[in-house]
Amino acid sequence: MEAVEAADGGRDVHAWDAEITLDRLRGDIRRFASDRDWEQFQTPRNLLLALVGEVGEVSEIFQWKGEVDNGLTGFSEEEKKHLGEELSDVLFYLLRLSDVCGIDLGQAAGKKLLKNIEKYPVSKCYGKSTKYNKL
Amino acid sequence: MEAVEAADGGRDVHAWDAEITLDRLRGDIRRFASDRDWEQFQTPRNLLLALVGEVGEVSEIFQWKGEVDNGLTGFSEEEKKHLGEELSDVLFYLLRLSDVCGIDLGQAAGKKLLKNIEKYPVSKCYGKSTKYNKL
Amino acid sequence: MEAVEAADGGRDVHAWDAEITLDRLRGDIRRFASDRDWEQFQTPRNLLLALVGEVGEVSEIFQWKGEVDNGLTGFSEEEKKHLGEELSDVLFYLLRLSDVCGIDLGQAAGKKLLKNIEKYPVSKCYGKSTKYNKL
Amino acid sequence: MEAVEAADGGRDVHAWDAEITLDRLRGDIRRFASDRDWEQFQTPRNLLLALVGEVGEVSEIFQWKGEVDNGLTGFSEEEKKHLGEELSDVLFYLLRLSDVCGIDLGQAAGKKLLKNIEKYPVSKCYGKSTKYNKL
Repeated sequence: MEAVEAADGGRDVHAWDAEITLDRLRGDIRRFASDRDWEQFQTPRNLLLALVGEVGEVSEIFQWKGEVDNGLTGFSEEEKKHLGEELSDVLFYLLRLSDVCGIDLGQAAGKKLLKNIEKYPVSKCYGKSTKYNKL
Repeated sequence: MEAVEAADGGRDVHAWDAEITLDRLRGDIRRFASDRDWEQFQTPRNLLLALVGEVGEVSEIFQWKGEVDNGLTGFSEEEKKHLGEELSDVLFYLLRLSDVCGIDLGQAAGKKLLKNIEKYPVSKCYGKSTKYNKL
Repeated sequence: MEAVEAADGGRDVHAWDAEITLDRLRGDIRRFASDRDWEQFQTPRNLLLALVGEVGEVSEIFQWKGEVDNGLTGFSEEEKKHLGEELSDVLFYLLRLSDVCGIDLGQAAGKKLLKNIEKYPVSKCYGKSTKYNKL
Repeated sequence: MEAVEAADGGRDVHAWDAEITLDRLRGDIRRFASDRDWEQFQTPRNLLLALVGEVGEVSEIFQWKGEVDNGLTGFSEEEKKHLGEELSDVLFYLLRLSDVCGIDLGQAAGKKLLKNIEKYPVSKCYGKSTKYNKL
């Protein structure tokens, strides 16, 4: 992925992929906002409503499809690309919301995963979709 | 963060924080599902509805608060922890949804950020919250 | 449906069904709030986030079900009742949000239906789920 | 509101306002779908995702506004009209979802209001936004 120099004040935006860290993601999103003087708009509830809006756009992609199998075999390349963009927008607002709330999302998520592991012991919920309070 | 051995089949769950990579997050979430034989339930639309449910839980935290400032000065420690947990659940379903759809979320997000940088040139949108198609 | 006198300040809450008017619904929801001095909390964005929370609860009912047929043949009576309650909560917040925004939802909906009829002419979209801007 | 004859197969669409019944709304929405042979797409989960999409569009209207007062004093006439349209779309999908699920939304809502009146006794929750399980 090429850097976009002129458009972003001469700074490089480097390639991303699955190896990118949450911290790097958070920093790039924060810089995107500060470069545009948008921090004034990015209050917790504004960002939350923006997140809801983006989840709505993901939903629109799936809304008339009936059940969809993993790998999205019935999707066109254009639809897959569109979906990747909308999921990215959800990620951006989620990271930004966590950031302005002063929450280290990586740390919070690590703790929550441990909590989920305890709430859903393998021996009790193997192969069952039952909610933990009904196990 | 301590490892939870007995609860998760003897495997370690290492500490996470902002330095964690998206790939590591994706892998741990995937393993959490496969350990429980839950992949059968984790179709794209099931995961999307679960994501909507978690966004709803984040919304419930903010719903009667009126405007909230950055850093959440009016929140109790318990509320902040609860918020971190719900934001984590959103992240889990977002990563898992991307995973079952065969989308490399890091790569998609890098491309989308470049696209946003082009859609919102600093010179045109500095200090303005106007949508790109109204700039 | 019996009236609940003691619980609601001696006023009757009459039976509702599909014959009820939007105006009656709006009035009863407004009175429910004013009886509890809750109008102070019911600002547009608070109500919108509450609406998002309730849509999340509806989603949780459907999230692990895979495709569901009309009439909900796989649902227990308890699940159906629960769904009716959550759909009702969505309706309450939708009516209340419209009310505090000063929008006559019945009138707005009538106009929007006419607009949809024009956007989606029968001759062009019979049997097709295509969005109007791609017809 | 004038009837739109040519666009909708010669049938009249009468004026709506707050006096309209839920049953009339439900019937008109159902007819809108059946006239277009769209019932095949209107399964419960498709309609639910469409509802989520419309709630997302309402959220987009409010997302960069900060706190908004009742009556929407800072909104332009165009924004108010747009909001009325998006709230109407939420209502349409809510009614249609209830309809295909075989739920009498008016009756369900009447019962739920009674339940809420019992869950939130005036004496205990006057002037408090506390959730019923924390009263």
